[in-house]
Amino acid sequence: MSPKSPLTVIPPDIVAVSDYEAYARERLSDMAWAYLQAGAGDEHTVRRNLEAFSEILLKGRVLGSAAGGHTRLSLFGHVYEHPIFLAPVAYQKLFHSDGERATALGAAVTQTLMVLSTLSTVTLEEVAQAETAPPLWFQLYLQADRSVSLDLIHRAQREGYRALVITVDAAMAGVRNREQRAGFRLPPHLSAVNLPSQSPVPTAAPGQSRVFDGLMKTAPGWDDIEWVLSEARLPVILKGIMAPEDADHACRMGVHGLIVSNHGGRVLDTLPAAIEALPTVAAVVAGRVPILLDGGIRRGSDVFKALALGASAVLVGRPYVQALAAAGPLGVAHAIRTLREELEVVMALSGTPTLDRIRAEHLSL
Amino acid sequence: MSPKSPLTVIPPDIVAVSDYEAYARERLSDMAWAYLQAGAGDEHTVRRNLEAFSEILLKGRVLGSAAGGHTRLSLFGHVYEHPIFLAPVAYQKLFHSDGERATALGAAVTQTLMVLSTLSTVTLEEVAQAETAPPLWFQLYLQADRSVSLDLIHRAQREGYRALVITVDAAMAGVRNREQRAGFRLPPHLSAVNLPSQSPVPTAAPGQSRVFDGLMKTAPGWDDIEWVLSEARLPVILKGIMAPEDADHACRMGVHGLIVSNHGGRVLDTLPAAIEALPTVAAVVAGRVPILLDGGIRRGSDVFKALALGASAVLVGRPYVQALAAAGPLGVAHAIRTLREELEVVMALSGTPTLDRIRAEHLSL
Amino acid sequence: MSPKSPLTVIPPDIVAVSDYEAYARERLSDMAWAYLQAGAGDEHTVRRNLEAFSEILLKGRVLGSAAGGHTRLSLFGHVYEHPIFLAPVAYQKLFHSDGERATALGAAVTQTLMVLSTLSTVTLEEVAQAETAPPLWFQLYLQADRSVSLDLIHRAQREGYRALVITVDAAMAGVRNREQRAGFRLPPHLSAVNLPSQSPVPTAAPGQSRVFDGLMKTAPGWDDIEWVLSEARLPVILKGIMAPEDADHACRMGVHGLIVSNHGGRVLDTLPAAIEALPTVAAVVAGRVPILLDGGIRRGSDVFKALALGASAVLVGRPYVQALAAAGPLGVAHAIRTLREELEVVMALSGTPTLDRIRAEHLSL
Amino acid sequence: MSPKSPLTVIPPDIVAVSDYEAYARERLSDMAWAYLQAGAGDEHTVRRNLEAFSEILLKGRVLGSAAGGHTRLSLFGHVYEHPIFLAPVAYQKLFHSDGERATALGAAVTQTLMVLSTLSTVTLEEVAQAETAPPLWFQLYLQADRSVSLDLIHRAQREGYRALVITVDAAMAGVRNREQRAGFRLPPHLSAVNLPSQSPVPTAAPGQSRVFDGLMKTAPGWDDIEWVLSEARLPVILKGIMAPEDADHACRMGVHGLIVSNHGGRVLDTLPAAIEALPTVAAVVAGRVPILLDGGIRRGSDVFKALALGASAVLVGRPYVQALAAAGPLGVAHAIRTLREELEVVMALSGTPTLDRIRAEHLSL
Repeated sequence: MSPKSPLTVIPPDIVAVSDYEAYARERLSDMAWAYLQAGAGDEHTVRRNLEAFSEILLKGRVLGSAAGGHTRLSLFGHVYEHPIFLAPVAYQKLFHSDGERATALGAAVTQTLMVLSTLSTVTLEEVAQAETAPPLWFQLYLQADRSVSLDLIHRAQREGYRALVITVDAAMAGVRNREQRAGFRLPPHLSAVNLPSQSPVPTAAPGQSRVFDGLMKTAPGWDDIEWVLSEARLPVILKGIMAPEDADHACRMGVHGLIVSNHGGRVLDTLPAAIEALPTVAAVVAGRVPILLDGGIRRGSDVFKALALGASAVLVGRPYVQALAAAGPLGVAHAIRTLREELEVVMALSGTPTLDRIRAEHLSL
Repeated sequence: MSPKSPLTVIPPDIVAVSDYEAYARERLSDMAWAYLQAGAGDEHTVRRNLEAFSEILLKGRVLGSAAGGHTRLSLFGHVYEHPIFLAPVAYQKLFHSDGERATALGAAVTQTLMVLSTLSTVTLEEVAQAETAPPLWFQLYLQADRSVSLDLIHRAQREGYRALVITVDAAMAGVRNREQRAGFRLPPHLSAVNLPSQSPVPTAAPGQSRVFDGLMKTAPGWDDIEWVLSEARLPVILKGIMAPEDADHACRMGVHGLIVSNHGGRVLDTLPAAIEALPTVAAVVAGRVPILLDGGIRRGSDVFKALALGASAVLVGRPYVQALAAAGPLGVAHAIRTLREELEVVMALSGTPTLDRIRAEHLSL
Repeated sequence: MSPKSPLTVIPPDIVAVSDYEAYARERLSDMAWAYLQAGAGDEHTVRRNLEAFSEILLKGRVLGSAAGGHTRLSLFGHVYEHPIFLAPVAYQKLFHSDGERATALGAAVTQTLMVLSTLSTVTLEEVAQAETAPPLWFQLYLQADRSVSLDLIHRAQREGYRALVITVDAAMAGVRNREQRAGFRLPPHLSAVNLPSQSPVPTAAPGQSRVFDGLMKTAPGWDDIEWVLSEARLPVILKGIMAPEDADHACRMGVHGLIVSNHGGRVLDTLPAAIEALPTVAAVVAGRVPILLDGGIRRGSDVFKALALGASAVLVGRPYVQALAAAGPLGVAHAIRTLREELEVVMALSGTPTLDRIRAEHLSL
Repeated sequence: MSPKSPLTVIPPDIVAVSDYEAYARERLSDMAWAYLQAGAGDEHTVRRNLEAFSEILLKGRVLGSAAGGHTRLSLFGHVYEHPIFLAPVAYQKLFHSDGERATALGAAVTQTLMVLSTLSTVTLEEVAQAETAPPLWFQLYLQADRSVSLDLIHRAQREGYRALVITVDAAMAGVRNREQRAGFRLPPHLSAVNLPSQSPVPTAAPGQSRVFDGLMKTAPGWDDIEWVLSEARLPVILKGIMAPEDADHACRMGVHGLIVSNHGGRVLDTLPAAIEALPTVAAVVAGRVPILLDGGIRRGSDVFKALALGASAVLVGRPYVQALAAAGPLGVAHAIRTLREELEVVMALSGTPTLDRIRAEHLSL
């Protein structure tokens, strides 16, 4: 049975972002679905990212004034309408024929920051130059060849991307068994169009370790971060920080922001939930740089909890991609609006009319 | 398949109030059922309200004397036969053709306090003037126009309602996805007959926030409570307190009682269970005013636990409405009698022949 | 479909006492099954009695000597071959045509102490005078009329019963919903043959409480225990103690032993598991009298854990009744042998060749 | 339906060692399957061995250098390529027609240490003398007759086995109900070919305890360990230690290594998971001897966790036997390679390029 076409109108039974999941399933091939949903190993961390939020309890406040409240925030010198950002997701033409162009349109009409992936299937230029473009950050996978990375940085700067998000937790792809069982391969008509060509994967000699003597040979290190900091004119944000030790090191080195993330549970199984790692990272960062939270956001209340525990904003991934697959730009915009209004409801019912008022005291800890 | 008619006799397999649930389901439309059962979001709090009780353990005492015990209590100058009160539930003609009149009859024959909702489908006068009327409190949703609220207060006072219960945790309706998916709308023949007409919902301008610039514009605040206290001759009880901070504020302001409640999990998902919030509220209130507990009561042992943790009485909602739907006034009366006798059994087997003897020491904490 | 006949040989797939459950189900009427299995309310405590054992972890010891070990114990001046006793269970002709006579035979051939219920369907004399009789204790439900109780005590003493077990946790029968839904009634051909006739249940006047003004009027109190202590020549053991306060009171009053029990979860739901209450009771008793544990034993390791936490012996109920229903005396004997050998295996593998060596240090706490 | 033949090629949906389970099931008789999978009692410990690992959380480190890392370790004077050893498993011709010969071949081509069982179905000489033999240790069940044990020790020494692993936690076989229900018996064509003949099981006289007066009469004791230490030229490792008391005793006596193990949950049910016992054992051993961990390893991350909590290496049992049943030597080799590469990925993503760098600080405790 071939996948259905995207919806052109949001049906009345989609009332929460998780409702997009079933609609997306019907509109994606088994391979694309496996690629989107899969996590590393037994997917404990994938599930934990979600479940951890439901175990954090709100407190609720009554009779407070929230009239005139708003969800605006300022980050690295720019104002954003709300703190729900689109996480970098690779190869979006797997999910919708317009790929990242469609996502960007949905983001633009909802004034939503989009983080474009290095591995996008639409060039970073095309996304930035669209008539209706959202605020943009560029996610950078550091390349084995620094000149390739530098070229990406320069292009992103030229096109008005406002920050560089360097993914640091994916030195290798992770053992994604679900993807392997589905025999996932990128379809031949898709490629990472920002890159000169698919960079060759480093290989190990016979008898050597594919991991230690292959993949890790070209994995980025802290020295590469220093190099980016010295070369880039944009704020540099590290994505994939879970250990307080790494957060502290990054702050000392001068990075401008951190994204607490376990890569959606896709790289290393049995990591803690991102939201579980956030408080320990926030404690060691102690306000030196802004922290964002990525992983497991499915409700406005999840956004609220992340902010209460120290995040300035959050990134969502699978939910908007499911909405993209189900209903294109319309779906992306609807999913974001849904999350944002849920967030506003929680803010109003917690006595916190602005984001900076959201603190741990608004949770039942 | 159209809903069945109400039962005219209680079948032998209804031995606990939860047994009414299946009978009610068969006698309600999908929409009415969704309205009754739905909670906010993923309904974590709906479930938690129930599960939290089963995790609180009784202790059991043996060989104590309980002969001549009773369940009477005195509250705001009135004596009540037992501490199981009927929570305010809106639009009861959704559940039974006689609506609140049927509920009141079931309450009257069991000497049960009924809290009538502002949004009743029978006027507060008709309920109070019935030949067989129960003790009554009036639940007040503060209206955007104070003169409308004042009129309700005066009418309730005139009709002998004994207290005002102001619901403070529902500045907006909550994101009730189950209700939305069922496409719930009030049937055209039903309306909130106590109110002059459906008050217009405040709307936000295009581009504004429906929450912050719409709903919250007319949401009640603490100043409205002060105003009610200055205007009303009746005890004023706030319903929907979960945060100790709010409980303390209310006590300082001079309210006469508090109802710990998360609105049956209908407004904000991932709040703690009401019974979980009770001890922290009771600690800060420290006896200044009586506290009632609303949410999750399905057993006499639940009533006992609430009293042991600081409540003077409890409110039940869905259970009596399910009984109403299943068997009208007969069902309501039977449900209350069942809960009351279960409570008496727990009291007898815990060595507590009167309510004031029930303390935390009777639980296994 | 009418129930099957009892087995005359133990089939090879009965290798643990819980394997009798399915065989018993096929050999009992719905009513008898409901009576046997039912607990109070939602049966949380029934389940908790079982689950609590699986959460207590053994430690395991290696290379210790256990040759020549044994399971003998001495209690109230008598030696018993093993610490697995048969709990009093009423109306055993519900489960096997020979009722308590069959149980007694199975107990006798395995040298197992049997506690005969006041509500037996075979007279206490007939059980005691059987050619092959086990060691016997008599369980006493104190009767509203002390002369009836005294007659029972005298008969038990005359027939060589070695102790009186007074059930103190069943002032009323408990709200056993499963039994009610099954419409359980004692079949007309069965009765409590030890009693002069079914004593009238105390009734409440119309408008009075069935509990406080009815049942509790004749419920036994501490003064009745004092009276038994003054009248009986046998050791007096209280069954149904869960609260340390009651355990202490009983010790001060001079009772000779305690049985920690929640009546198999049949009287008050959401009590702790019996094994959970044991350590707190044992701590307050502090060796003044022997303690037995009743409730949830399904494995030899459960017996071991109870002894490690302060019990001198345990009582099993439903498991032997299921074995009785499935295979008569043969089943009872096989069930006991199975439990006993499981206990011996745990003792051998824990380095505890005798019961008195079993301590909390043999658990992983 | 008769069992299928072993696979001759690894199908693409086997991507984790647990994927072998379903393939093995189709290739084994019910009896062999029951023998392989069964645990003691209700198999709580079997499950706990697995679940405990998923509750231990990694931490994840980023941007560390792991190029040139490796998994080598040195133990008792020998270097091993990786720390994933094959646990002793009896009667392997139950699982594959070539039995231990096939396992040894799979081990050899992956440079994997194999621990051969006393109860092998291929002689210890034949395994050692194969053209392609892996590094070998010999597992010794101490025999009732010391001369039989001594002969085994001498043969193992003569054939180049590098250590003796004495199983100390199986004084008796454990109450393996699943095995009993399947009616497991060793097929007549299989036997323990290393032993002179099946040694007679000690029997108890009628009325005696099969456990205390039978099996335990010939169970090994600490004196037997002392005797082995005095007789053997090889390092002596005790397998089956769970209690810190026993670990300490063994160290004081001079044993050379310990294997923390609950025998795969096959001997005593409701023991803790092996990985739960490891930290307490490691604390008391305090580096005096190397510790290995056996039980529940299904992922490279499990290996990493065991090493972080104090183990020098791990043993896997059921996973490689399932692979053996599914695909013979090819399966064994593939299973080991899969685990090893998973381990390497975790090491690389945890910033630990060598085994000695793996510490508790790399977990989220």
